[in-house]
Amino acid sequence: MGFKAVPYTDVELENVTEEGAKGAKIRWLISKKDQATRFAMRYFEITEGGHSPLHSHPWEHEVFLMKGKCKVVCDGEESVLTEGGVIFVPENAEHNFQNIGEGELQFICVVPIMD
Amino acid sequence: MGFKAVPYTDVELENVTEEGAKGAKIRWLISKKDQATRFAMRYFEITEGGHSPLHSHPWEHEVFLMKGKCKVVCDGEESVLTEGGVIFVPENAEHNFQNIGEGELQFICVVPIMD
Repeated sequence: MGFKAVPYTDVELENVTEEGAKGAKIRWLISKKDQATRFAMRYFEITEGGHSPLHSHPWEHEVFLMKGKCKVVCDGEESVLTEGGVIFVPENAEHNFQNIGEGELQFICVVPIMD
Repeated sequence: MGFKAVPYTDVELENVTEEGAKGAKIRWLISKKDQATRFAMRYFEITEGGHSPLHSHPWEHEVFLMKGKCKVVCDGEESVLTEGGVIFVPENAEHNFQNIGEGELQFICVVPIMD
């Protein structure tokens, strides 16, 4: 009951339509639909020059970079990471992820399930 | 407060000493030490022919495969995945991860913080 084992490409790729996002797509790899109750695993890809919205919210992000070059901004602090980069964005911090490299940026981003 | 952005290799690589593990190492990429309160992100690497213990516990796993060929067993069901594989193991399921490929198996595994 609830076991899931699939290639990530089996999960639908959707546009991130939130205002302030540019060239960002998401796959909800593991979520409530899979009977997950505590946290959800998402895959993001961001085109060259694209970015996620600069925003804040009362939940954290745990991120692993698979591919590309990422500038992450968090409450005014900046850091640049490539493949294998690990990022923890605490809840309520203003943050975004920018693709500052050549080619696509790909990362996993885990968030709590809040409801 | 709590923002973290590092290459994964900056986080200590430790042996998995649990009985039944073979050739498995872990990095606690994001955990309580980083002020995470709800879930922890770990990196695993397993040598050719190695595996995690066949066990169960009252918490789930959300897994993303970065490299290698993995056989996952979950309550008797088996699945084989390679790079880009996504696995959800529900709480209390008996499971393990086996490296059945050539070369190293690498994956991210997220678990809830239970205490």
